[in-house]
Amino acid sequence: MPGHFTFYSNTISGDIALFDETEFKHAIQVLRYQMGSVISFTDGIGALYEATINSIGKRDFSAKIGSKTVVEPLPSIILAMGILKSSDRMEWALEKCTELGVSEFWFLKTKNSERSHLNLERLKKVVISAMKQSHSAYLPQLKSLNFEEAIKLSEGISNNKYIAYCGDFDSKPIRNSEIPAVFFVGPEGDFTESEYQVAVKSGFVGTGLGPSILRSETASVAVLSAMRLK
Amino acid sequence: MPGHFTFYSNTISGDIALFDETEFKHAIQVLRYQMGSVISFTDGIGALYEATINSIGKRDFSAKIGSKTVVEPLPSIILAMGILKSSDRMEWALEKCTELGVSEFWFLKTKNSERSHLNLERLKKVVISAMKQSHSAYLPQLKSLNFEEAIKLSEGISNNKYIAYCGDFDSKPIRNSEIPAVFFVGPEGDFTESEYQVAVKSGFVGTGLGPSILRSETASVAVLSAMRLK
Repeated sequence: MPGHFTFYSNTISGDIALFDETEFKHAIQVLRYQMGSVISFTDGIGALYEATINSIGKRDFSAKIGSKTVVEPLPSIILAMGILKSSDRMEWALEKCTELGVSEFWFLKTKNSERSHLNLERLKKVVISAMKQSHSAYLPQLKSLNFEEAIKLSEGISNNKYIAYCGDFDSKPIRNSEIPAVFFVGPEGDFTESEYQVAVKSGFVGTGLGPSILRSETASVAVLSAMRLK
Repeated sequence: MPGHFTFYSNTISGDIALFDETEFKHAIQVLRYQMGSVISFTDGIGALYEATINSIGKRDFSAKIGSKTVVEPLPSIILAMGILKSSDRMEWALEKCTELGVSEFWFLKTKNSERSHLNLERLKKVVISAMKQSHSAYLPQLKSLNFEEAIKLSEGISNNKYIAYCGDFDSKPIRNSEIPAVFFVGPEGDFTESEYQVAVKSGFVGTGLGPSILRSETASVAVLSAMRLK
């Protein structure tokens, strides 16, 4: 593959791909690519391309596609994390879970979440950057959901539904979990007992994350690591 | 246990524990504890205590120990990571690995590390804070070592020695790894082929971290997660 960098475009028309301002900055301003430079990029939905830059504008550029490789997706893991007080910690969790191949990342408004506003544009930049960094061909989908919406949405998705809840003393070890999976991790202060009961009634299995007490963002990354590396 | 917080003191004389300025700020200035307040703390070497504050100075305080509980250590995992360009990313790896119960964290000066200076005082604050956060009774030891020193030091420690190296196409999956273990993760740009060969000659086994390309700090946290949760 040419160079060490993977770019991202979701605007492909025929054999021409258009790249937005973020990619323009990275490719043209930072890396100084020029007309005729060969780049590799992904569409974020499963294909990697090789292409040659054929037009450079003031804030965007385009490239002519030479070849396309379709990449098999990893088995699906959806990680749903309670919204945290700290944007930094949320962005870290999102970046790391993207590197580790999360399929969708849901931000849950729960009883103990101290806020509900999310800067989804900024979070989307984080996932795009992490996807490029890890040379993946799949851009994780982001969703912002109420706890109850997320429970309902999960019902149609998978029978393997897990919830990490500190108050669950009969929790199953994560090594028993199966993929494809939906995995719920609480915010600071965890899920409430009543949220946990709603999840269990809907078919979620209480799952333990080892001997330590983990912060929410650590728990999220630990889930992805344990599921992808087991 | 009283309160939600665990404090740290490594200065215990008879039944009196002394707490330094960091703990003073946390307990007295932030949480407003007073004479007679009951706190729990750890000595970082395996014991949890309950104690009653019996003296408050201008920058420190002391507490009289009421009870002591000895905590079994987790099986040892030593994580050795190449020194990274970004302090933030190193601190994040250290914080998360501490939460996940790393026993020792070594910073390796390798061929591809772009710097060798470390602010060990600052890194020590990170581990203390993460240990308190996760209510652990063990403070991970920090070491700053040259790659060769680290290889030698590992020889006396464990027969289970693993190295994550992207150029190793015969690597074993991490689920085959056994604890107690020493685990080497490279810096940005990875270990060199020659460093990898030195490790293999010394008995290290090349170990893979799944289908994704991971940053160094993500790889470190993934190793701890996979080993502690398997």
